[in-house]
Amino acid sequence: MTSVQAPAGHLKVVGTTPIRHDGADKVTGRACYGADIQLPGLLHGKVLRSPHAHARIRSVDPSRALALPGVKAVVTGAELPQPSGKVIDMGEGDLVNPRFLSNNCLAVDKALYKGHPVAAVAAVDPHVAEEALSLIDVDYEVLPPVMNVLEAMKGDAPLLHDRLLTMAETTRRAGGLRADDDPGEGSNVSNHFVFEIGDPDRGFREADLVVEREFDTSTVHQGYIEPHSATAMWHGDGSLTIWCSTQGHFNMRDQTAQVIGAPVSKIKVVPMEIGGGFGGKNTPYMESISALLARKAKLPVKLSMSRSEVFEATGPTSGSHIRVKMGATRDGRITAAEATLAYEAGAFPGSPVNPGTQCIFGPYDIPNARAEGYDVVVNKPKVAPYRAPGVPAAAFAAESVVDEICRALDMDPLEFRLRNAAREGSRRVTGPIYPRIGCVETLQAAQEHDHYREPLEGRNRGRGVACGFWFNGTGPSSAVASVNADGTVNLVEGSPDIGGTRTTSAMQLAEVLGIAAEDVNPSVGDTDSVGWTSNTVGSGVAFKTGWACYEAAWDIRRQLLQRAALIWDVSPDDVEYADGVISHRSDPALRLTFREIAGMLNSTGGPISGRGSVDPKGVGNAFSVNIVDVEVDPETGKVDILRYTAFQDVGKAVHPDYVEGQIQGGVAQGVGWALNEEYVFDGDGGMVNSSFLDYRMPTSLDLPMIDVVQVEVPNPGHPFGVRGVGEAPIIAPVAAVANAIHDALGIRVRRAPMSPATVLEALWQKGQAKD
Amino acid sequence: MTSVQAPAGHLKVVGTTPIRHDGADKVTGRACYGADIQLPGLLHGKVLRSPHAHARIRSVDPSRALALPGVKAVVTGAELPQPSGKVIDMGEGDLVNPRFLSNNCLAVDKALYKGHPVAAVAAVDPHVAEEALSLIDVDYEVLPPVMNVLEAMKGDAPLLHDRLLTMAETTRRAGGLRADDDPGEGSNVSNHFVFEIGDPDRGFREADLVVEREFDTSTVHQGYIEPHSATAMWHGDGSLTIWCSTQGHFNMRDQTAQVIGAPVSKIKVVPMEIGGGFGGKNTPYMESISALLARKAKLPVKLSMSRSEVFEATGPTSGSHIRVKMGATRDGRITAAEATLAYEAGAFPGSPVNPGTQCIFGPYDIPNARAEGYDVVVNKPKVAPYRAPGVPAAAFAAESVVDEICRALDMDPLEFRLRNAAREGSRRVTGPIYPRIGCVETLQAAQEHDHYREPLEGRNRGRGVACGFWFNGTGPSSAVASVNADGTVNLVEGSPDIGGTRTTSAMQLAEVLGIAAEDVNPSVGDTDSVGWTSNTVGSGVAFKTGWACYEAAWDIRRQLLQRAALIWDVSPDDVEYADGVISHRSDPALRLTFREIAGMLNSTGGPISGRGSVDPKGVGNAFSVNIVDVEVDPETGKVDILRYTAFQDVGKAVHPDYVEGQIQGGVAQGVGWALNEEYVFDGDGGMVNSSFLDYRMPTSLDLPMIDVVQVEVPNPGHPFGVRGVGEAPIIAPVAAVANAIHDALGIRVRRAPMSPATVLEALWQKGQAKD
Repeated sequence: MTSVQAPAGHLKVVGTTPIRHDGADKVTGRACYGADIQLPGLLHGKVLRSPHAHARIRSVDPSRALALPGVKAVVTGAELPQPSGKVIDMGEGDLVNPRFLSNNCLAVDKALYKGHPVAAVAAVDPHVAEEALSLIDVDYEVLPPVMNVLEAMKGDAPLLHDRLLTMAETTRRAGGLRADDDPGEGSNVSNHFVFEIGDPDRGFREADLVVEREFDTSTVHQGYIEPHSATAMWHGDGSLTIWCSTQGHFNMRDQTAQVIGAPVSKIKVVPMEIGGGFGGKNTPYMESISALLARKAKLPVKLSMSRSEVFEATGPTSGSHIRVKMGATRDGRITAAEATLAYEAGAFPGSPVNPGTQCIFGPYDIPNARAEGYDVVVNKPKVAPYRAPGVPAAAFAAESVVDEICRALDMDPLEFRLRNAAREGSRRVTGPIYPRIGCVETLQAAQEHDHYREPLEGRNRGRGVACGFWFNGTGPSSAVASVNADGTVNLVEGSPDIGGTRTTSAMQLAEVLGIAAEDVNPSVGDTDSVGWTSNTVGSGVAFKTGWACYEAAWDIRRQLLQRAALIWDVSPDDVEYADGVISHRSDPALRLTFREIAGMLNSTGGPISGRGSVDPKGVGNAFSVNIVDVEVDPETGKVDILRYTAFQDVGKAVHPDYVEGQIQGGVAQGVGWALNEEYVFDGDGGMVNSSFLDYRMPTSLDLPMIDVVQVEVPNPGHPFGVRGVGEAPIIAPVAAVANAIHDALGIRVRRAPMSPATVLEALWQKGQAKD
Repeated sequence: MTSVQAPAGHLKVVGTTPIRHDGADKVTGRACYGADIQLPGLLHGKVLRSPHAHARIRSVDPSRALALPGVKAVVTGAELPQPSGKVIDMGEGDLVNPRFLSNNCLAVDKALYKGHPVAAVAAVDPHVAEEALSLIDVDYEVLPPVMNVLEAMKGDAPLLHDRLLTMAETTRRAGGLRADDDPGEGSNVSNHFVFEIGDPDRGFREADLVVEREFDTSTVHQGYIEPHSATAMWHGDGSLTIWCSTQGHFNMRDQTAQVIGAPVSKIKVVPMEIGGGFGGKNTPYMESISALLARKAKLPVKLSMSRSEVFEATGPTSGSHIRVKMGATRDGRITAAEATLAYEAGAFPGSPVNPGTQCIFGPYDIPNARAEGYDVVVNKPKVAPYRAPGVPAAAFAAESVVDEICRALDMDPLEFRLRNAAREGSRRVTGPIYPRIGCVETLQAAQEHDHYREPLEGRNRGRGVACGFWFNGTGPSSAVASVNADGTVNLVEGSPDIGGTRTTSAMQLAEVLGIAAEDVNPSVGDTDSVGWTSNTVGSGVAFKTGWACYEAAWDIRRQLLQRAALIWDVSPDDVEYADGVISHRSDPALRLTFREIAGMLNSTGGPISGRGSVDPKGVGNAFSVNIVDVEVDPETGKVDILRYTAFQDVGKAVHPDYVEGQIQGGVAQGVGWALNEEYVFDGDGGMVNSSFLDYRMPTSLDLPMIDVVQVEVPNPGHPFGVRGVGEAPIIAPVAAVANAIHDALGIRVRRAPMSPATVLEALWQKGQAKD
């Protein structure tokens, strides 16, 4: 790992690498994850899932299951209150259709994917519950499924929902996608939108070269190591406690309240440790089912998924079809760009096609651009966000086209990108104008790096580069902190810690107070214990929760100054705070370290706590550049990663080691997406590879050490210059690998994953076409 | 229940009686108490206790115990770090000698009471642990015990500690206590002090009547229903979590840190629900033992006491010997008073003799007074505070003497007390001058009550009155609160809830915000989750933690006003907050209820949390008057309570139902102390009645309904006029019952409990002496 730009010199804690506060618990097995909760009288639940990808549910008869000794309750979707379909804002622009949310938790009239929950059982042990599932009689009318975004957009496609009203007109506009047929009365297209800046048509006319290509990506899963688990217990006053691992317990509380029809303030969600999420643990699945079962059984109920259930019934990300058209002048200026993105939403509306369109041309300053999105339902599990949702597929398309243009113009691909790089003042196709960003600096860092300068030798080897852009997110966040008498500080914040954010939060608090990160004791509060905090998403926690901690620390500082003034009987205006020392501006005898005054608080007016609740603007955008060297075996189509260097503008890196880890992890996931990962379905819409043996994620043996170059262009919108860092790393790898494969063998693979079969097919087509 | 003075009219929540927030969990068994914690791999511990009241420990050999299959660890006192004997202030004037604290948790050189822990075992189940205890070989040199305060003060008494240095001089002054012998080099007297105001000798010379009497009380226990339990788990980074039920988890954390020699910030204490404490759950017992065992066994360890262990090895309150001398003029003015109080501390110094002296003459305005205290170690368990610590015994003595003076002067006992009643400006013997108090109002309420006006008919029946005074306590306290989008508020405070203080805290927060108590969701935070909060003692929680909540609510109010100004784009100065509505002072269109603005927070700048950390002064003192009618069976000596009315100045009653419950509970405990409760020891210092069958506490069958009259004289030192209410009720009953017995049979019983045997003995002595 190397760092390109020096951090702001005055920071003493931010930018260092203390040991993570929860590290010992996690490596010794002390940390308690979702399924680790134990309660007296706990029942165990299992979910009956549809064996059909598409079926009408004529009836569900639980009577034989209920007769099985040990079975305490059975629930079906009919027992949920079926909230209205009116979309509500769950906060931070997270729009949710409560009825779809409910129907995804428990199907009512139709099963829309294999694995869709149809009923659930609570019993004295998991084995009895499992046995009882087979005794629930469901009468299905099996319907033909539609499993692909292009198929689903056709007019004669099976329709998943009666009430996604006709979108014939907008669908007709998807001509470039060959979805020409009039879908008539209904549609599987649940959303369609177009963004445009400048005059794309004129831009293309001004181009010396126009390249237009189409790309497909398969459904892939986040692959977090910890399966979902939810445990619910009702209290005598009608309140409910839920233990689960989630990326946002406040949002989980609010959404569960919607599904079960309970007031928010009657539900407490306790966030257990989370064994990975990557976007996939924002959605409620079994929380409301466990709540229903527990209410009926009058005992607490735990539900835990198997790996197959995770694959088949939680949100993977969208399969996609993307068309990209770009035009450039001979001297390497992009004159126009156009993209049409059609994303599979799974069984219910809501794919990440919007962020896909927002980011597809993000690394570039393009005067004329258009981006069009389609959100399309198919008979797969409802998609969930996956790390920079929607963008790796978009970047795969755009960056492959850029690479093709560079080749055609015989320009260095980084030089071409630098010439067109987004910078402060550039406008994105979706409207926003960039503040201070580090796109140019990141490209320059790549250009100057040994990896780019050193030639790649050897047969069937190639080097690829690609860029990535992610806007990063923010949202409301809360923290409270209390000073201990020994000069330490207890910190409670509301963000589930996926990537070390207990520590990055503690560090920002420590920075303000002038104490060591180790002297802060951070914990994640449940929904009763800290203010509302938006989900751990959008690479936003170090930014927003760090800011909440910054505010809490300032709240403490202000009170400490007042207290010192009280102790010394001087004016607060004459007291200052610097480097963890409170002192009088003119009397050197009046001086107290943080630890000293902390020990005096209880006897000088009482303890001091601070609070910070924020919804910060000023998010910093993230840019990445990846360089990858591959070797392709032309006999088998297998691609080996030889060398990988990831450059990213990380803003001010709060904890450079964790930033490095985020970048390495994101690249690893991107490489899996590029080369191996995909859902494979049988002809009836059933996933046939729902295990980690058959769903092939990269292991350490598949990857070299990922080199990371952190380019620090501080975000002017944050007190310490923090940008988000977690999602941008996954964006460039698919495209970078594709461009490297082209460099190696001269083939353009436009379908991910670029698995051996796909590569061989491309090689075969090249042979056929003499490309 | 009746209420004498109307509360301040503007309060809308304070003074009402909402249902307690934790009520449903407690009546349905959902609440988790100390022993309810379960952890993976949990081991169970047992404590080997000294069978001797006084013995030198020559050696402890655990080798046979360690060889027993299933035994995972054995610890002895030698493994504790043996902190220095230098007294430290644990906060709020709580002085602790760390070495005594440690030696009480695990004996080192000497066992000082039967039940004193000598070693402990952790094993795979409690039965194996129990069995292992019998395999620990301890070589004792048995020493003669001293079991009574007067015996212990004698020069030839066995000495418990070598290092309580000579107090010959001060002990000689205890002439009135007949402890004349020179104790020589060592002493069992660990403290001696004298308070004096005016000129007592002159005061006695001015008196027309002087009465001097001596009184004895036995050791009694708080009798909380939940035995002690402590579970400890170490984390890989050297931090420790302890689950226990305690009256103060912050203090428990700090004291355990002292005993085991760990930094405070490495220990987290999680307060479980507490099944009664009454002062007895402030002291660490098994917390450090479980921590030691868990560290050695590398697994979590739970220790839970049996009822016998609670009796024999946790702190009861002091047995005492008290001499009271009072002088009065013929017209009923007290001219002088003097008291010498000698209190048993148990095995280590620290009886409540100081509060005894502070309160003994509290209800009276006496110009000349002296109060002298002796703290004396004996071979009984180290005493712990018990509800108004030290004062029931003191009041028994003083109020009996007052009654005797009234009889001698032929004055109405309430009229006499009114004539001498403490009032604003009166000085207590220990120095403080009263602020606004309700002593006169409480006496008047009693005077005017039917119970006092109606004659008592019947043979062997008598009526007694007595007063009580308790200063009440305060201390640092912390609270944080977060506004939910549905207009409810989550409140986290640091006071373990023994008497409904979650609700009284929530009510004070609700009052400030103008919302309903039910819209506040209170919880008790662990030591990592909220600021330092002093123990639930001194009747202080409704006062101090209520005030912390009051401050947290104001912190929210201020932010809400700013937010409303931001939303309306007006000056914050033009926005006001009243009755839960925020409005513009002049524009009636600008108006938001608390619920409305709560729903807007996340989209207008983020959530709002408030914090309050206080160490409030302005404690209000509490006064009580009790009237009791008894019937004494002269054949058996059994005393029946016929009617009981308790009057108390409760300040502003936050929740009158809970205040009534506190008063009824305190009276019931006081009656138990008066009539039945006592530790009975065999000749070797072993308690022979260590079960609830043999240690006789009053049941509902033993008591009539206790009538309660709440006299509300608001405390000017608190925003809502709150005084403490929990302890004062236990003070008067012993004396009131004694005075009633005298009224019934003409005998003065000066030993508590006034059990049938004691009453019969007094009757016999009366017959002998023709009294």
